[in-house]
Amino acid sequence: MSTRDAPSYIVAPDPGRGDLTRRVTGTDQEGKPLDLSVVEERPLTIFLNGREIVTAMTIGDYPEYLALGFLRNQGMLRDGETVRGVDFDEELETVVVRTDGETSYEEKLSKKTRTSGCAVGTVFGDMMEGLEGLTLPAATVRTSWLYALSSRINRTPSLYLEAGAIHGTVLCQEDRPLVYMEDVGRHNAVDKIAGWMLSEGVGPEDKILYTTGRLTSEMVIKTALMGIPVLASRSGFTAWGVEIARQVGLTLVGRLKGKRFVCLAGEDRLVRDADPDSVADEDSRHRRKSAV
Amino acid sequence: MSTRDAPSYIVAPDPGRGDLTRRVTGTDQEGKPLDLSVVEERPLTIFLNGREIVTAMTIGDYPEYLALGFLRNQGMLRDGETVRGVDFDEELETVVVRTDGETSYEEKLSKKTRTSGCAVGTVFGDMMEGLEGLTLPAATVRTSWLYALSSRINRTPSLYLEAGAIHGTVLCQEDRPLVYMEDVGRHNAVDKIAGWMLSEGVGPEDKILYTTGRLTSEMVIKTALMGIPVLASRSGFTAWGVEIARQVGLTLVGRLKGKRFVCLAGEDRLVRDADPDSVADEDSRHRRKSAV
Repeated sequence: MSTRDAPSYIVAPDPGRGDLTRRVTGTDQEGKPLDLSVVEERPLTIFLNGREIVTAMTIGDYPEYLALGFLRNQGMLRDGETVRGVDFDEELETVVVRTDGETSYEEKLSKKTRTSGCAVGTVFGDMMEGLEGLTLPAATVRTSWLYALSSRINRTPSLYLEAGAIHGTVLCQEDRPLVYMEDVGRHNAVDKIAGWMLSEGVGPEDKILYTTGRLTSEMVIKTALMGIPVLASRSGFTAWGVEIARQVGLTLVGRLKGKRFVCLAGEDRLVRDADPDSVADEDSRHRRKSAV
Repeated sequence: MSTRDAPSYIVAPDPGRGDLTRRVTGTDQEGKPLDLSVVEERPLTIFLNGREIVTAMTIGDYPEYLALGFLRNQGMLRDGETVRGVDFDEELETVVVRTDGETSYEEKLSKKTRTSGCAVGTVFGDMMEGLEGLTLPAATVRTSWLYALSSRINRTPSLYLEAGAIHGTVLCQEDRPLVYMEDVGRHNAVDKIAGWMLSEGVGPEDKILYTTGRLTSEMVIKTALMGIPVLASRSGFTAWGVEIARQVGLTLVGRLKGKRFVCLAGEDRLVRDADPDSVADEDSRHRRKSAV
């Protein structure tokens, strides 16, 4: 699929969707009653071919993409594996992914027991091996695209702007944000992007992944395994995230706010075509305080 | 142990510790080379009585507290269980916790396989049952304490202020922050607090837990299981976090910044002794952009 002529936001946040937020009453610092919009958080149990794999806490939109992307990013769905069906049951809060032939989940499950208890640890244990011999495409990234993406994404109506306390991850091409997923878990937002790419047969080689979250080893590994050569964030770095990005040749741009950014890996892909001084600082209305 | 007369910060962040951050070179938006301090992130594999339980990604300080707190918060260490030893091996990146008698980890491990893949999910699956019949102590919380804690914690030298991209959790009593733990994972910072409390025999009934992170179901459940009646954060809420806090009678205060805060559960414990208008807004030097 070519998105070159497609309009931006093939998938955009839908803050108006009633089932993703809830009105909650409380009090403010003056003791005055207030009515607050908070994001939902509900369990989704993912099955692969009748075997229960994981229960994730999610806002609940795009359960099919979340299931597909989670299984793909955990290495339980291999390249060329045919997905026969993805069935979501809202009442049971389950999604069942059916494939032809053998999957590798038996082997993966034995691993996960060792590494569960921490999202990073869990993913890490299953995914690190997939990085061996991985080479990412030699794309170029214009700094004008990064500035345009950052500005556009921050101004896009979202659950974050509506209710806060949520992470966002956006699949982008050049200066165009294409798929903007949000979730209570940073890893869920990325997995929903992976599930969308898998479902739509969209290639990673000319894409940029933008996240509101930190550039940890987990984020870097997921991005690399998805084959996306560039990962950008308004947040900071961890040392291991930087180390892995350099090992696999991923372009890692962080602290992208207003005219500022820092590149700690894959500098060679950057084409510095924008004058930073021509970029406006973020105004406070749109400045993300981030999800944490 | 009474901390009433003890000075604040029995345990404080040590941003000067060389092994918790690393200098990394990169470029800024002008293409100028820069030298950045980023937090470390390394695996720690936790064993219980010779059985490998989990590999967590951590900055690496207080591995013994992290191991004890993780096992306790996962219900693998029960009340009154005698810990015979906690041995950390820096080279192997392992910590072994030894107990007398039977532990419940066999049962817990079978659970965790179902819920791994997401920190919230993992913790949730193991911990939700522990909430049945739980009642938290009827403590009072002065709003003047909350303001004092927020101001003090934000100005405390920390890895966050040094390198960013890290979460903080602080065990407090009245207006005094006692134990300030930081980690790349929010759940690790809380587990290190739990491990410290377990090691030092410190009771939860008169404590307040402060976190830089969101008030998700995971944070609320951990705080309730630790027996701490009050959880405060500068960040926002999720709907399920609020719901569980109301079920167990936990006082939940969020969006605590400058003079502002929101209370969505356990309002009855609040003693509103402070005039919000007398509280200074946070100045930008100390305003946390948070870890995300």
